[in-house]
Amino acid sequence: THNYRITLLPGDGIGPEIMAVAVDVLKVVGKKFDIQFEFQEALIGGAAIDATGEPLPGSSLDTCRNSDAVLLAAIGGYKWDSLASHLRPEAGLLGLRAGLGLFANLRPAKILPQLIDASSLKREVVEGVDILVVRELTGGIYFGKPKGIFETETGEKRGVNTMAYTESEIERIGRVAFEAAQKRGGKLCSVDKANVLEVSQLWRDRITKLAQEYPDVELSHMYVDNAAMQLLRAPKQFDTIVTGNLFGDILSDAAAMLTGSIGMLPSASLGASNPGVFEPVHGSAPDIAGQDKANPLAQVLSAAMMLRYGLNESTAADHIEQGVLEVLQRGDRTGDIISPDMNLLGCRAMGQALIQVL
Amino acid sequence: THNYRITLLPGDGIGPEIMAVAVDVLKVVGKKFDIQFEFQEALIGGAAIDATGEPLPGSSLDTCRNSDAVLLAAIGGYKWDSLASHLRPEAGLLGLRAGLGLFANLRPAKILPQLIDASSLKREVVEGVDILVVRELTGGIYFGKPKGIFETETGEKRGVNTMAYTESEIERIGRVAFEAAQKRGGKLCSVDKANVLEVSQLWRDRITKLAQEYPDVELSHMYVDNAAMQLLRAPKQFDTIVTGNLFGDILSDAAAMLTGSIGMLPSASLGASNPGVFEPVHGSAPDIAGQDKANPLAQVLSAAMMLRYGLNESTAADHIEQGVLEVLQRGDRTGDIISPDMNLLGCRAMGQALIQVL
Ligand SMILES: CC(C)[C@H](C(=O)O)[C@@H](O)C(=O)O
Ligand SMILES: CC(C)[C@H](C(=O)O)[C@@H](O)C(=O)O
Repeated sequence: THNYRITLLPGDGIGPEIMAVAVDVLKVVGKKFDIQFEFQEALIGGAAIDATGEPLPGSSLDTCRNSDAVLLAAIGGYKWDSLASHLRPEAGLLGLRAGLGLFANLRPAKILPQLIDASSLKREVVEGVDILVVRELTGGIYFGKPKGIFETETGEKRGVNTMAYTESEIERIGRVAFEAAQKRGGKLCSVDKANVLEVSQLWRDRITKLAQEYPDVELSHMYVDNAAMQLLRAPKQFDTIVTGNLFGDILSDAAAMLTGSIGMLPSASLGASNPGVFEPVHGSAPDIAGQDKANPLAQVLSAAMMLRYGLNESTAADHIEQGVLEVLQRGDRTGDIISPDMNLLGCRAMGQALIQVL
Repeated sequence: THNYRITLLPGDGIGPEIMAVAVDVLKVVGKKFDIQFEFQEALIGGAAIDATGEPLPGSSLDTCRNSDAVLLAAIGGYKWDSLASHLRPEAGLLGLRAGLGLFANLRPAKILPQLIDASSLKREVVEGVDILVVRELTGGIYFGKPKGIFETETGEKRGVNTMAYTESEIERIGRVAFEAAQKRGGKLCSVDKANVLEVSQLWRDRITKLAQEYPDVELSHMYVDNAAMQLLRAPKQFDTIVTGNLFGDILSDAAAMLTGSIGMLPSASLGASNPGVFEPVHGSAPDIAGQDKANPLAQVLSAAMMLRYGLNESTAADHIEQGVLEVLQRGDRTGDIISPDMNLLGCRAMGQALIQVL
């Protein structure tokens, strides 16, 4: 028997509903593959603010550190939008990433044949799209200093953030990306804005040098504005993409939306030694929270990513992913991915359908 | 008779070919509407580097200043890609923007019914799309200091750029955007990353305050990652978008690509007092340069934008824009927008077709 301690961070909005489904799925799969999970729950985001005044209490971070992997649902909501920025739910998420040193964010965007019509792009443009965005997650403009709102000599305010990368930060995320590309289609596209930004010139230099160590990976470079265009024009040209924190935020969301079903997309955030955090790409959807309407499959697939990348239990991960495909094949759909002639299910019912299949 | 002195900056790649068409069109329209153009040509980009060693010689900037409007084609090419960044073609473009104080970049992305099938998005998603992106052009991370590649205490390199905006910079571009929205659909969406960046928080505050002066404009705010998704998911929700330099670079290219025909899209860059610069959204396309294959219509429509926004000659601008629609209606197409049953024309032939119609 393998034993793992898993920290659950249900967070806000639809978070608790979809987390409940993922936990049920993990239990079923655990039984099947002789894996024992010990679940411990902690507060983050708006839920933590309401309970403790802080978006990431120190005790939550400790609980996460003291586990083998962290499964996060979603954070945020209108309710906390007017708080000062360091007290908002998002600050909890950034604190978690920094606190666990999760420098590598893996965001797959794969078109499922069953859901191809959900895309706003033409079938022939998106059919077969299978992109992995590797986003740097603990550096760049998200954390660079100086930052803040300062007063200028003339007495007006000036907002400042700093986009910075050191060579070792670039190399570290570069290695993750080259290794991921090796296991995938062997193509890596590094995205930057080296025709304008010095930080991108260093990025491009360092990634280019690193390529010598990965002769089996075909490296290309693209400017971020062009990448946004190409994702829309001809997404099949991409295999693995590596980029900085801000560009990765934008491009991974665009790549996700290509699929038309971001309620289906998981992500993994990994560091060097601490446990990884696994979470859906979608947000907390406060408008449908508590109504049993949410799509739990991105959360379930995040649990599968946790098994694969966080716990090295890829057989169990495969089993979950297969199950999700089967449920879709049967025609079961939540509201966000419904189409004519399919069965509309709520969040809980979708979970039950999946467990039946598993 | 109205007299205008126009500076032509043909630049690199396909620049000279498409510029020649635009100049012919301006001459024809000038005759018709009793407008006299005095054209003066200057060097920029790779062409300037080859001739003078600099991407924007002082004399070029002087020539531009000393004119009523500037018509630019395109700059850049592989040939100059390995030069140091301050000697590259792009530096000439940035120098022109800064030198003329062109803080407002207007980038329309409008789907033409004749070209709707060129889009990679489904017809029902893009039909009727008509977006204006108002991008701040002389501030933000493109120009913020400190910037450069520095050595850290541990001896490794660190690349740094600074994203900064003052209140007055935000207000200035905000006014342009609110006024543009007033003349359009009355809706303005301001895009930022205020959940992470302080510079965006100041941006959002200032734009929100400014909205009080434009009660007839409906203002909304959106995070940049969500905006990238929404442009792809449901672009019709947007009317006018206002955003900073970097986000505008990315989003205006994505918006342009929605149309599927960036060979058709013009742009305008305006300042407070100096002449404006009008140029196509597309690049210099070195791979097809000199082959008479380029689509000259974005350059022609840039000349129309010059008439409208730079010279206040909107009747003449209307006439050109009508002419372009008529040529498309006849079925004339360059290679980039060709579809079955249409007439394939080269760059020059497209120009002649247009002049016939005009
Ligand atoms: C909520 C926000 C801080 C976060 C980010 O910008 O990283 C989100 O957009 C994401 O991509 O995980
Ligand atoms: C060529 C480059 C410097 C430029 C920019 O980033 O502004 C271009 O992408 C544009 O949008 O005009």
